[in-house]
Amino acid sequence: MSDSRSVSGAEKETARVEAFSDGVFAIAITLLILELKVPSGLDEHGLRSALEAEWPSYAALLVSFATIGIMWVNHHRLFNLVHRVDHTLLLLNGLLLLGVTVVPFPTALVADYMGRGGARLAAAVYSGWFIVIAIAFNLLWRYLASPARQPPLLKVSLESPEVRAIHAAYRVAPLWYVIAFALSFWLPVASVAVCGALALFFALPPRHAGG
Amino acid sequence: MSDSRSVSGAEKETARVEAFSDGVFAIAITLLILELKVPSGLDEHGLRSALEAEWPSYAALLVSFATIGIMWVNHHRLFNLVHRVDHTLLLLNGLLLLGVTVVPFPTALVADYMGRGGARLAAAVYSGWFIVIAIAFNLLWRYLASPARQPPLLKVSLESPEVRAIHAAYRVAPLWYVIAFALSFWLPVASVAVCGALALFFALPPRHAGG
Amino acid sequence: MSDSRSVSGAEKETARVEAFSDGVFAIAITLLILELKVPSGLDEHGLRSALEAEWPSYAALLVSFATIGIMWVNHHRLFNLVHRVDHTLLLLNGLLLLGVTVVPFPTALVADYMGRGGARLAAAVYSGWFIVIAIAFNLLWRYLASPARQPPLLKVSLESPEVRAIHAAYRVAPLWYVIAFALSFWLPVASVAVCGALALFFALPPRHAGG
Amino acid sequence: MSDSRSVSGAEKETARVEAFSDGVFAIAITLLILELKVPSGLDEHGLRSALEAEWPSYAALLVSFATIGIMWVNHHRLFNLVHRVDHTLLLLNGLLLLGVTVVPFPTALVADYMGRGGARLAAAVYSGWFIVIAIAFNLLWRYLASPARQPPLLKVSLESPEVRAIHAAYRVAPLWYVIAFALSFWLPVASVAVCGALALFFALPPRHAGG
Repeated sequence: MSDSRSVSGAEKETARVEAFSDGVFAIAITLLILELKVPSGLDEHGLRSALEAEWPSYAALLVSFATIGIMWVNHHRLFNLVHRVDHTLLLLNGLLLLGVTVVPFPTALVADYMGRGGARLAAAVYSGWFIVIAIAFNLLWRYLASPARQPPLLKVSLESPEVRAIHAAYRVAPLWYVIAFALSFWLPVASVAVCGALALFFALPPRHAGG
Repeated sequence: MSDSRSVSGAEKETARVEAFSDGVFAIAITLLILELKVPSGLDEHGLRSALEAEWPSYAALLVSFATIGIMWVNHHRLFNLVHRVDHTLLLLNGLLLLGVTVVPFPTALVADYMGRGGARLAAAVYSGWFIVIAIAFNLLWRYLASPARQPPLLKVSLESPEVRAIHAAYRVAPLWYVIAFALSFWLPVASVAVCGALALFFALPPRHAGG
Repeated sequence: MSDSRSVSGAEKETARVEAFSDGVFAIAITLLILELKVPSGLDEHGLRSALEAEWPSYAALLVSFATIGIMWVNHHRLFNLVHRVDHTLLLLNGLLLLGVTVVPFPTALVADYMGRGGARLAAAVYSGWFIVIAIAFNLLWRYLASPARQPPLLKVSLESPEVRAIHAAYRVAPLWYVIAFALSFWLPVASVAVCGALALFFALPPRHAGG
Repeated sequence: MSDSRSVSGAEKETARVEAFSDGVFAIAITLLILELKVPSGLDEHGLRSALEAEWPSYAALLVSFATIGIMWVNHHRLFNLVHRVDHTLLLLNGLLLLGVTVVPFPTALVADYMGRGGARLAAAVYSGWFIVIAIAFNLLWRYLASPARQPPLLKVSLESPEVRAIHAAYRVAPLWYVIAFALSFWLPVASVAVCGALALFFALPPRHAGG
């Protein structure tokens, strides 16, 4: 009886961490729109040109929206496997959420500087920040899936196909963002495009059965 | 036993997608107010005139608030019928949420340009964006209600009156927004008014019994 | 069996409306801070003066925070009595939420114009908006507590002390805001102060036992 | 039977207060990013310098993010011990949430004035505000843990190790922020650094077993 209650306490705890994280993801993804500026005081022709000239803002919004959305799905999938949270997990999750809340800033940087002088620096900050987030995801995951955690934080065996699929995907993700980062120094538009392609790629259904 | 547990897992999953979506709707609807600007440095007479001159902002705020509110009710009604979510549903829901988060931008466009040179373009973007959202709702619904999904994603029979009522309503909604869009090239104020009237119309109680 | 399931469905429905409303209240109350502007480019002495000169912003923030907070408590208390929601209730609740999301705008108006030329108009808009919200609360409550709703929307008898206490409090609240509104034409600071005093007054514990 | 229902009602009530508070924490922590400004209209070299010159913004963001994050964890830990909420607890919790929602303002002040003329005043407001929040936490906790509350608001005995650990920690926290406040008049950067160090210190796992 006391066992089942403590299990239920652990699940309530996990649910509250998930709910708080969901809130942060939902707010960060919705704040992106505040970076889109309405050009002021123009006539119809000028407004049309100004809206067309804002294409980097639309592109940056789309890529960041897709990336945060996919990160939410992944965070969600990760926490579906979590049995209980401990203090370190809370801190690592906080680090990841810091990564997510900051995204509107590099997004605004890309929106303002793409196609201008500072484009390479903007794309470098943008893709570089996604490396940071990918590393935060890896730290969280490695802590979760470490055999040293006793009792385990995960509900499932470390040998299960879900765990292996996540291991494989997470090992590779930061490297892709490193490629986007490297590209930013020559082809800033291509760097942002790679970030967008990565979001689409991660949006594909997971390969293991039952995902 | 394992069956009932997986059902409950599916319901928890659905609940979390609903909660995340609710968060995005609630934030987008509340961010609309940030587009209302306080005119600065005026005396009483000037302030009164400036506040009166902001009527397009108030109108745009009201129409967008009503539209997002009704979309929330519809999203809610849809997900009440959902039994489980799969990966594609998650992506289609993400597309819909993208539509919702963007609404403050065309709203600000209408607020700034109604009654001025760029009014027609602003109303076209505004009503055009609602076509996009109506299409996203249709994609989500068609996927949900497709007989090809096995096991079905819906809790209810595809022949049930709720499903038929939603089919009928969703088939028509984009067409109404196309009319608002077409109007925008001649009568931008009428275009925005049609969007407002549509929100009121969709706010009427559903015609089928038990809704 | 089917009865108890529909009761649980009604409770889930009510819970989701409460959760969405809570989200809107939480966001509106937190967005208030965005109206506080950091004075830019000053030395220490200038910064101190500028921060001191912002007292109307602090006052408006406090009064609006307290008012939205108390409205949340009241909304909460109302929905604790709600057994099921119907379509009209959803719309009336939406009207109330519209009232809440708008609050940051009259708050910014008071923050910018108190102690200046437009103070009377700002205080009139501010207190006038609270009349609108008080009326929205009354509409919601009268619909909820109408004996015409069959089956009733409330869990408790219309003769219960909670219901009577709410009746008494809601009947009076708009009148107090009318006084604040009337005051705004002579003494704008007193008008805002009355709004603050009302929030404190409504924050007193309810008089009936068991509240 | 009626007993167990009222217990469950009390838990639902507590859960709703927690959810509202979580929403406010999540929004306040995510709004911090809005204070980071994108420097406009620069070439690559100028942009790099401008981004480097924004280090006080990054530092303030990090310290405030960590502080709000830790306050969330503490709030969470406190409410895990709460059995039921009463009216006064609701008001004290509201006072604490007021403290949390304001944090983006002193953060912006530090971001704009660190390394400039107004740095000492900015750091004083910043650390001073954390004293206010620490006092609000103490008021909330003292009310919760007072033996005068009958029936008790806490689930656990006032002699339990969790309660004693919180007593010990809360007694000291305001004093540390007083030190940061005192430092602000000589060494504003050190004052903000102490606030950051305190967040890291409070992030250490609690010393009592089972935390």
